[in-house]
Amino acid sequence: MKEPNVLTMKDIAKMLKVSVATVSRALKDSPNISREQREKIQKFAREHNYYPNVIAEQLRHTRSAPTKVIGVIVPEFVHYYFSSILSGIEREAYKQGYRILVAQSNEQYTREVEICESFFQNKVCGIIVSQAKDTKKYDHFLRMLDNGVPLVFYDRICAGINCNRVVVDDYMGTFNAVSYLIERGSKRVAYFGTDLDLEIGKNRFNGYKDALQKNSIPFDESLVKLCDTGQQAELVTPGVLAMRNRPDAIFAVNDDTAIGVLQTTKRMGFKVPDDVMICGFTNGFRATSCDPMLTTVEQRGVEVGKQAVEVLVDRLQGKHPINHVEKRIVKTRLVIRGTTR
Amino acid sequence: MKEPNVLTMKDIAKMLKVSVATVSRALKDSPNISREQREKIQKFAREHNYYPNVIAEQLRHTRSAPTKVIGVIVPEFVHYYFSSILSGIEREAYKQGYRILVAQSNEQYTREVEICESFFQNKVCGIIVSQAKDTKKYDHFLRMLDNGVPLVFYDRICAGINCNRVVVDDYMGTFNAVSYLIERGSKRVAYFGTDLDLEIGKNRFNGYKDALQKNSIPFDESLVKLCDTGQQAELVTPGVLAMRNRPDAIFAVNDDTAIGVLQTTKRMGFKVPDDVMICGFTNGFRATSCDPMLTTVEQRGVEVGKQAVEVLVDRLQGKHPINHVEKRIVKTRLVIRGTTR
Repeated sequence: MKEPNVLTMKDIAKMLKVSVATVSRALKDSPNISREQREKIQKFAREHNYYPNVIAEQLRHTRSAPTKVIGVIVPEFVHYYFSSILSGIEREAYKQGYRILVAQSNEQYTREVEICESFFQNKVCGIIVSQAKDTKKYDHFLRMLDNGVPLVFYDRICAGINCNRVVVDDYMGTFNAVSYLIERGSKRVAYFGTDLDLEIGKNRFNGYKDALQKNSIPFDESLVKLCDTGQQAELVTPGVLAMRNRPDAIFAVNDDTAIGVLQTTKRMGFKVPDDVMICGFTNGFRATSCDPMLTTVEQRGVEVGKQAVEVLVDRLQGKHPINHVEKRIVKTRLVIRGTTR
Repeated sequence: MKEPNVLTMKDIAKMLKVSVATVSRALKDSPNISREQREKIQKFAREHNYYPNVIAEQLRHTRSAPTKVIGVIVPEFVHYYFSSILSGIEREAYKQGYRILVAQSNEQYTREVEICESFFQNKVCGIIVSQAKDTKKYDHFLRMLDNGVPLVFYDRICAGINCNRVVVDDYMGTFNAVSYLIERGSKRVAYFGTDLDLEIGKNRFNGYKDALQKNSIPFDESLVKLCDTGQQAELVTPGVLAMRNRPDAIFAVNDDTAIGVLQTTKRMGFKVPDDVMICGFTNGFRATSCDPMLTTVEQRGVEVGKQAVEVLVDRLQGKHPINHVEKRIVKTRLVIRGTTR
């Protein structure tokens, strides 16, 4: 498959006196070789304008024609945000002449590993994936990279790999939403959020904290709750609204939680938005079903899916040096409805 | 690929002095041969216990190993019912060792045709499909059948082909829901439904009419509206509730419409359920988001998807004579919440 006058990994390996596997790992930013060696090899590749030939690479690995099929891993289909991302992926893939093999991990690491293997057997040309909540190891992802199957992460990014990704602007989305609550008169904004281990949880929390600071409102630990489902909201909200110095606004990291907060708040006899303002994050169908309708951050799943395909196809067509990592951030937008004054 | 002592289409063709293509069409219930000939060939096949060997058949057609990939066509992913069906399909397919290629028709005939062709090129072993609203011709489906690619329809069935199908019990689901509204004191139940051309629309409407009749409530044309989206509901509801002899209950064929009715009814100052009872059909996330929460018919999408895969796999494994058509009906169940007394 070698093309004339094109530098291959083999050439680089020969010149640097290392194994091809080492070169391959280095160019894929695999952490399982020493940092020095990785950087040395990447520097060399850059200087000699090494460009990947993924098709050829894949041929070497799979010994059969590369497919125009993209593997897509979704934590769960029955979820507004994920189904809109899937919709964006399918439309863009179709436009670019690709088909998609789809599987859901059901948030399980073991299932995710099996899916990767089966996608590889099905000779997918790349994988677009949102990591399962359950996933703490990422050897299965590295295996794909080592076998020349490019990955693009969306929504939940694998912390262990410096890899192509498309996410929404969680930080600014939250910063703007919380700033708006303050602008509308809130003096005490509560934050109902997720696990700070997840990058997405961290970014939203920082957006919240910075919005308070920028508006010189003191940060109050007691207003921050680990609560990211509607059911949890029904358990957590009563305690929060029973505080002597109760919040006059609650920001929740997703619509399901926000609606749980809204329903519980109303049940307790508080008026929304007069007594308590509420803001969510998603803008799914539920946001226009509740009463009053939900002010929320539009997460633009279709756009995220579309861009994930663009990033993968660029990679497949060798638009960038192989060690280039594309990180895209999709802007969110605040949709103002009845739960805010 | 011929196995010893197994009757092939070729054998049947020879014995009946017709072409193999004719036999193939007859055994696939293709309407484009004469009814007599079709029945004669099917009778012969039954009598001689002809069983299909789909794998071999597929090999003859595609000249390559059969894949364990099922093609799935969904009208649109961002839709609670369809995403739950897709979830059921994926889980069952995975359990049975199949992968799924997924595409959305966006309710367009042309797109549906392209998807079928691309699925065929991708050598899917079968196709599970819900017909696009836009589809009036079905030559693309017949082409698949004639090429040995079995089809299973779900939700929206192709009227033109006597084919494997899995649907929910629209008739009984509606009959029971409307009977319940009457049991709870309704004297006048309005019906907001879809196009009667669609089988699904016809069955639900008949369930409504029969429920009235069984409870000896006169049928009133003026209470039947063509209205199956939330936006339409906002336009149609005011007129209906302004009638001199207004309905005291409204049954809507899906939750989106029912929630549009609920929001408009409240906006007009009527109390739900005291002045007007409302019942939907889906039981998606929206049903528990509105206030009061929606009484609705649970549509069991995951079960529909699961059974669609079962039907296809039975067919692939030749569990039934090739001319056998499997028609499954999944029972619905009424979920009672706050929009009914």
